[in-house]
Amino acid sequence: MKNIYIIGVGLIGGSLALDIKSNNPEAKISGIDSNEAHLDEALSLQIIDLKADYDDLNTADLVVLAVPVDKAIAILPKVLDLVSDHTLVIDVGSTKLPICKAVAQHDKRRNFLATHPIAGTEFSGPKAAVHGLFQKKTNIICEVEQTTFKLQEKALQLFSNLGMRIRYMNPKAHDKHIAYVSHLSHISSFMLGKTVIEKEKNERDIFDMAGSGFESTVRLAKSSPAMWTPIFEQNKANVIETLDEYINNLKQFKAFMEADDFSEIYSEMKNTNHIKDILNGIN
Amino acid sequence: MKNIYIIGVGLIGGSLALDIKSNNPEAKISGIDSNEAHLDEALSLQIIDLKADYDDLNTADLVVLAVPVDKAIAILPKVLDLVSDHTLVIDVGSTKLPICKAVAQHDKRRNFLATHPIAGTEFSGPKAAVHGLFQKKTNIICEVEQTTFKLQEKALQLFSNLGMRIRYMNPKAHDKHIAYVSHLSHISSFMLGKTVIEKEKNERDIFDMAGSGFESTVRLAKSSPAMWTPIFEQNKANVIETLDEYINNLKQFKAFMEADDFSEIYSEMKNTNHIKDILNGIN
Repeated sequence: MKNIYIIGVGLIGGSLALDIKSNNPEAKISGIDSNEAHLDEALSLQIIDLKADYDDLNTADLVVLAVPVDKAIAILPKVLDLVSDHTLVIDVGSTKLPICKAVAQHDKRRNFLATHPIAGTEFSGPKAAVHGLFQKKTNIICEVEQTTFKLQEKALQLFSNLGMRIRYMNPKAHDKHIAYVSHLSHISSFMLGKTVIEKEKNERDIFDMAGSGFESTVRLAKSSPAMWTPIFEQNKANVIETLDEYINNLKQFKAFMEADDFSEIYSEMKNTNHIKDILNGIN
Repeated sequence: MKNIYIIGVGLIGGSLALDIKSNNPEAKISGIDSNEAHLDEALSLQIIDLKADYDDLNTADLVVLAVPVDKAIAILPKVLDLVSDHTLVIDVGSTKLPICKAVAQHDKRRNFLATHPIAGTEFSGPKAAVHGLFQKKTNIICEVEQTTFKLQEKALQLFSNLGMRIRYMNPKAHDKHIAYVSHLSHISSFMLGKTVIEKEKNERDIFDMAGSGFESTVRLAKSSPAMWTPIFEQNKANVIETLDEYINNLKQFKAFMEADDFSEIYSEMKNTNHIKDILNGIN
């Protein structure tokens, strides 16, 4: 794959560009972005080799769609209209059912592979792009059987070169599970940040008393609202379900405290300590 | 200070012992712990020089009380009974009002300094002890005026050697603020862990889909229930207040989602992004 187009040169698109270039020095990486300043930044940071436009896509070997998920479902059909039969088009969004639905009937559906690399940081934009972001990370691929064999193969080679392990899921299961392990974490973090900011008008108090525990728990509250708002919108039903369960668990914890039932408080924490084993599995 | 006694040779007590020994190679560090296995472990890890008993405390220059906060309020009066007039006794607990109250009328109140080093990890026990844990961390000192000048001075020198910066607060304000920036973070993390574990009976799904964001947000759910249960008990009123506000913020977020008001969802996150500046202040 020589002719690579990255649509959305932010954290994920930019990091992919950097690694693809490292792995294939002969590749030509073209960037497309509605934000002209980001495009210039990506060029000067040598994340992309040149700026491009949608009209150039007919020569693409690979198109990576790395824009917020609301933009992605609007852009993907247009991209598929423009590419040639041999072009692989992948997206990297955090919701998979809406994008799969958006192109289910598209003539070039078989050029598209729906993916979700579980990688990232709380930062965004081209400056946030880093080498090696995908090393040893999981990439979830949805509806793999809808993509032509040849392009499946190309994609798997690409992900293998990036150091990723692959898991296959259907888009509905993906969106349901990811609501728990990713989307809910972001809301719990944002609301924790909000609660503390609201209360502590005198920020020096936070500044002086907050330790690494607080920092770790609110880290995701630095995330981009432009990226996350459409994710919550597209995964509304699943996210609301996780929020209901989370709120109920918090209420129950509070009720145990109000009833001075600290042996239950102990049990709640003891049982959840089991998360250690699960997290050890992640690393 | 030559004769140092550490009561509770876990993460905090053990880490203090390691740094005090580095700073004062001539110091003799004695360990006291109700857990005999921990004491043996601390000895073999060279965290302490010898095992000791409460009867030995009359020769102490410094006694560090680093046990769960329920144990601390029970043990501190007994320790003060035993020490000599020139002994500095400090505690390191995460709640400050109950311990200050517990010894307010004690004859040797002026030997005691109430402190809360904002340092730690999610791990516990002697094995969790590390060098340099307190470097550049904040130590909150409460009711400093209740401690004799000479022992205040000794304590400040000790904390300065550990690399800590000092903040003075009254115990009531400490307990109120710390509920927001520390205690609530732990509950949000434990309940997030609980919610995900309950839902995802098939742990492989969590294992494969959870990324660094989830890991960061549930890190505190690995914390010790034996340490945290009495903290929540002693700081019940403040913690319940923070939980109420947190739950209300989560409910409001959910209500915006149910009403499809995603411009409000965007604003909620945008406003909370301000946490970046606060966290930058921490580092």
